[in-house]
Amino acid sequence: MIEYRNLRVAILGGGSVGAQVASLLIEHGDELAARAGAGLEVVGVAVRDVNAKRDTDIPAHLLTTDAESLILGADIVVELIGGIEPARTWILQALQSGADVITANKAVLANHGPELFDAAEQVGAQLYYEAAVGGAIPIIRPLRDSLAGDRVMRILGIVNGTTNYILDRMDVHGDSFGEALMDATRLGYAEADPTADVEGFDAAQKAAILASLAFHTTVPLDAVYREGMTSVTHEQVVAARKAGYTVKLLAICERLVDAETGVEGVSARVHPALVPLDHPLAAVHGANNAVFVEAEAAGSLMFYGAGAGGVQTASAVLGDIVSAARRHVVGGPGVAESTHANLPVLPMSSVNTRYQITLTVLDEPGVLATIATLFSDRGVSVEGLSQSVRDGGDAERPTATLVVITHQAAESSLAATVAALAASPVVSSVVSVLRVEGL
Amino acid sequence: MIEYRNLRVAILGGGSVGAQVASLLIEHGDELAARAGAGLEVVGVAVRDVNAKRDTDIPAHLLTTDAESLILGADIVVELIGGIEPARTWILQALQSGADVITANKAVLANHGPELFDAAEQVGAQLYYEAAVGGAIPIIRPLRDSLAGDRVMRILGIVNGTTNYILDRMDVHGDSFGEALMDATRLGYAEADPTADVEGFDAAQKAAILASLAFHTTVPLDAVYREGMTSVTHEQVVAARKAGYTVKLLAICERLVDAETGVEGVSARVHPALVPLDHPLAAVHGANNAVFVEAEAAGSLMFYGAGAGGVQTASAVLGDIVSAARRHVVGGPGVAESTHANLPVLPMSSVNTRYQITLTVLDEPGVLATIATLFSDRGVSVEGLSQSVRDGGDAERPTATLVVITHQAAESSLAATVAALAASPVVSSVVSVLRVEGL
Repeated sequence: MIEYRNLRVAILGGGSVGAQVASLLIEHGDELAARAGAGLEVVGVAVRDVNAKRDTDIPAHLLTTDAESLILGADIVVELIGGIEPARTWILQALQSGADVITANKAVLANHGPELFDAAEQVGAQLYYEAAVGGAIPIIRPLRDSLAGDRVMRILGIVNGTTNYILDRMDVHGDSFGEALMDATRLGYAEADPTADVEGFDAAQKAAILASLAFHTTVPLDAVYREGMTSVTHEQVVAARKAGYTVKLLAICERLVDAETGVEGVSARVHPALVPLDHPLAAVHGANNAVFVEAEAAGSLMFYGAGAGGVQTASAVLGDIVSAARRHVVGGPGVAESTHANLPVLPMSSVNTRYQITLTVLDEPGVLATIATLFSDRGVSVEGLSQSVRDGGDAERPTATLVVITHQAAESSLAATVAALAASPVVSSVVSVLRVEGL
Repeated sequence: MIEYRNLRVAILGGGSVGAQVASLLIEHGDELAARAGAGLEVVGVAVRDVNAKRDTDIPAHLLTTDAESLILGADIVVELIGGIEPARTWILQALQSGADVITANKAVLANHGPELFDAAEQVGAQLYYEAAVGGAIPIIRPLRDSLAGDRVMRILGIVNGTTNYILDRMDVHGDSFGEALMDATRLGYAEADPTADVEGFDAAQKAAILASLAFHTTVPLDAVYREGMTSVTHEQVVAARKAGYTVKLLAICERLVDAETGVEGVSARVHPALVPLDHPLAAVHGANNAVFVEAEAAGSLMFYGAGAGGVQTASAVLGDIVSAARRHVVGGPGVAESTHANLPVLPMSSVNTRYQITLTVLDEPGVLATIATLFSDRGVSVEGLSQSVRDGGDAERPTATLVVITHQAAESSLAATVAALAASPVVSSVVSVLRVEGL
């Protein structure tokens, strides 16, 4: 029988993840101790009301409402309450007391990451957050450690399971947005108020976290461009598939050079995008998540798995607990999150992407030339276009559908082109404008 | 200007990976120092002949033939010579001198892993080997750290780019094995002698490494069942696609219980297998690698990327160098590779898989019943079968093709069934027997 030093683990939050983490720590104690090189003793689970009815069973003697005392007596603090406060304060208290902190809380990281990482560095404690992005998919550790000697150029992430489920239903089953959302709600993928998911707030928090880590640069949440997916129509999804694409809500982080100023910087953004059907991200169905990373030497990598369910999040949290325990056993400070690169965070107007623009145009001679000129006059180069046979309008003024794919173009040039198209007498409507990624 | 402590990095091997690692360390020195918290000084590159012509440029003053002196003066030793000796001896010397070692050498790990990990543990040094499996794809670190709190149940890996390229060509382009192999050789994916790849030796080494790590158990190379892919025919690949599968050479590591003895253990094997077209592994084309992991809590995860090219391997090696440097800065021993679980390694006869069996049978009444009885008498349960219209034989004794998919069956029962089928007067030939994975 090997005797291990015991580490005291405090869990903040008695929801489903907290309960699962506690029960796995208790059930698999011996195995985890062998892996960690230290015993992991759950010293308490802080909840708002010890008598609240909960559908999971945490041993009653572990429940407490006194989070602050629990924190002070712990070697490892696991924050699973979510939201900004009191999570931020408690994480700071834990770090300042020298405890390592594990959190699955993307909101507090995206909003207060630098403050928390500084607090950790000052006392030589460590803040782990593998569960904050992509559920159980290891993405934080690969970016921080495995790619530490490489240079990440771009990240394309499907980091929100709810919206991927909805878009996948719209694509594969032909559902409308409303039908797919109802279905997602029924299955528990979407919350009663789905705003954070469908408007891209959740994905934007994850984009800020990934960009900060990948580029060694503080990327504040409010610098993340955000566009939700509520405006994506069934018709757009059908048209995309016909053209060889699927629509995904992507979190995109990239290194880029501002064309006007020549400044090298980074950018993070969330918006719906067309992804070619032969891209690995196009095969990510249902509520799954995947993060596609392009690095200078490593080339293209993809990390794929289930999104953030309770048990998946618990797996990621436990991995972090074992890492923290190993660090406690060996002593010494952890790896500080570094922002040494400190690149400027560039606005959306610095970003160049391709676009697919779908227009209803008059089916008359000379229309194509007119439209081509509208693009070229604004510096937007056309990669390809396809025109349907006349499929609308009336006998006198028949119309056709024109789908244009551009080469990479600046947001501002594209916006000017779209405005010119909308105002053109040969265009009866601009049906959709979608960015194209992964080409 | 921040002053860093300098760490002395010795590189063993001046091939393409060694040269790339050296030049990246020199070129990106400042950035890597910021990430590692320490300067990384290349103190030498050990080669067999300093005057040998090489197509990469390593600064001449760094070249030396005296590997042993180089090792003794280093904090971090990077072994990139491959093969068993002198790699094993040099790694042991480096570890015994207290240096951390980074290796991309799957052969030495698969054959002498326990000896090397023991040597590291005894002096509190660390052996890193992210580059040994899957090139730049982070798979070792996720298995060791991210999933440290979870329980890995199964790994299905496409871990050899050459064979995946060949099978993909056969599937997507209709090449024969010979054509695809020639193509792979021309493109530099296959070596002049492709035996290690096509016969599964390379994949078996990686399977031993992955199984040992995932199951915290020493899985010796000679316990890995190995079947190459040279017997896979163009016809099998075509038939597989028609039936909704693609053929992949898989490295499979799993936890299982021996049906007869009730013993819980682990198994590792390499063989061609049918993979359903909607499985994420089926979308891994060309020379790419991917490792699909099923864990108790995390569910299904996949790690995907380019296989082991020179630059990808260099990326993984650099990530390990930065990790080793951080560990040097913080002090303390590293994480010992643990074999605490020490599960028995079960033979191939303990493994249950599904099979697809393709037969040419007489197209006569009662034949199906006869064949069904041959399966059920040997305890092999049939999940489904499809019979073509008569497509062979002659007018007097027409034959048809029968494809049978079984439920999970033991190797021994399956072997007995195949023998009985071959001997049956209603079967004119057993066309192919392939395992099915990923259902």
